[in-house]
Amino acid sequence: MTNPTPAPTERPAAPPSTRDRLLDAAAELFYREGVGVGVEALCRTAGVSKRSMYQLFDSKDEVLAASLERSALAYQAFLWPPSDDGDLSPRARILRVFEWLEESAAAPDYRGCPFVAAAVEVKSPEHPASLVARRSKDALTAYFEQEAERGGAKDPALLARQLTVVFDGSSARAVVQAQGLDGLAVTTAGALLDSAGVRP
Amino acid sequence: MTNPTPAPTERPAAPPSTRDRLLDAAAELFYREGVGVGVEALCRTAGVSKRSMYQLFDSKDEVLAASLERSALAYQAFLWPPSDDGDLSPRARILRVFEWLEESAAAPDYRGCPFVAAAVEVKSPEHPASLVARRSKDALTAYFEQEAERGGAKDPALLARQLTVVFDGSSARAVVQAQGLDGLAVTTAGALLDSAGVRP
Repeated sequence: MTNPTPAPTERPAAPPSTRDRLLDAAAELFYREGVGVGVEALCRTAGVSKRSMYQLFDSKDEVLAASLERSALAYQAFLWPPSDDGDLSPRARILRVFEWLEESAAAPDYRGCPFVAAAVEVKSPEHPASLVARRSKDALTAYFEQEAERGGAKDPALLARQLTVVFDGSSARAVVQAQGLDGLAVTTAGALLDSAGVRP
Repeated sequence: MTNPTPAPTERPAAPPSTRDRLLDAAAELFYREGVGVGVEALCRTAGVSKRSMYQLFDSKDEVLAASLERSALAYQAFLWPPSDDGDLSPRARILRVFEWLEESAAAPDYRGCPFVAAAVEVKSPEHPASLVARRSKDALTAYFEQEAERGGAKDPALLARQLTVVFDGSSARAVVQAQGLDGLAVTTAGALLDSAGVRP
């Protein structure tokens, strides 16, 4: 991404910090190539010395976890803004998460949900990245549950877990089939919303 | 696993071939540690020289793909035996796949669906392991569709894709949460079967 030259009256943006450059490089590299990417490649891509990395993080695993944590917060702010103006129905607020997933999954470089991918790849439930993945899915499920409750679902907690399953299964399908979902995520979420009595 | 000493009248089993030893080691190592496991470790675990490996396979990627292919055939024979005696209803034949998933996902060493994990890890839709993963999911979806059709589903092809999504999403959930599904996979599949009009 290029930075446009600021107009004379604008204050130029501060350059990204060492930490941000590391987290940017981690988010991109680990998603594209997997958690096996080494410290050398990570630091080279970030334009940061290993010494600087180790001054900020205990290990590569901690860089991975911090980069996922930052992404999780960004997704949450984008997908379910807490300051939502409330014009949308609970059903619509749930379905827009799946609409967004359909859009993301249609991109040729889509490699699945970064949180599930990290948890699958690190192979250990106690890895710092697995802990972030768990918290991130719990946050998604909590959002679904809150909206399911507002929408009058029969069993909001069950529906919320089911919707999370549909989210992750759709994302896995897009990776395995190497193509977009063609409405499958939205349709399946809609069938479960119907079944739980959450009407438009 | 130990091999019991055969009774005197039994013919002793032939020792596993070099190929089988490689595929056994690959299935175990790649599932437990990820596709980054190297040729050295693979051959050491299999008790096979690298020369022998390369006489049978062009690359480690081909060993991985062949081991997934063998697993896919085993799962298919086990989960939906073609010579099924037909006593079960189509709905029950679908649900037993999810019951089996619930059982598998409760194991402490469960690391998710091996086909999805491989596709997620190799990061390339054209990798031989990704091709096997795709075929394996297509076979599961085809089985669901056949039974959905027999069971009178409104849209058997859609229901089959939805059930595959539930299968993969449940499996992802078990990995991320590092615990069993507690009925969620069966319940969610059941809700979609209900919604599609497939009765017991």
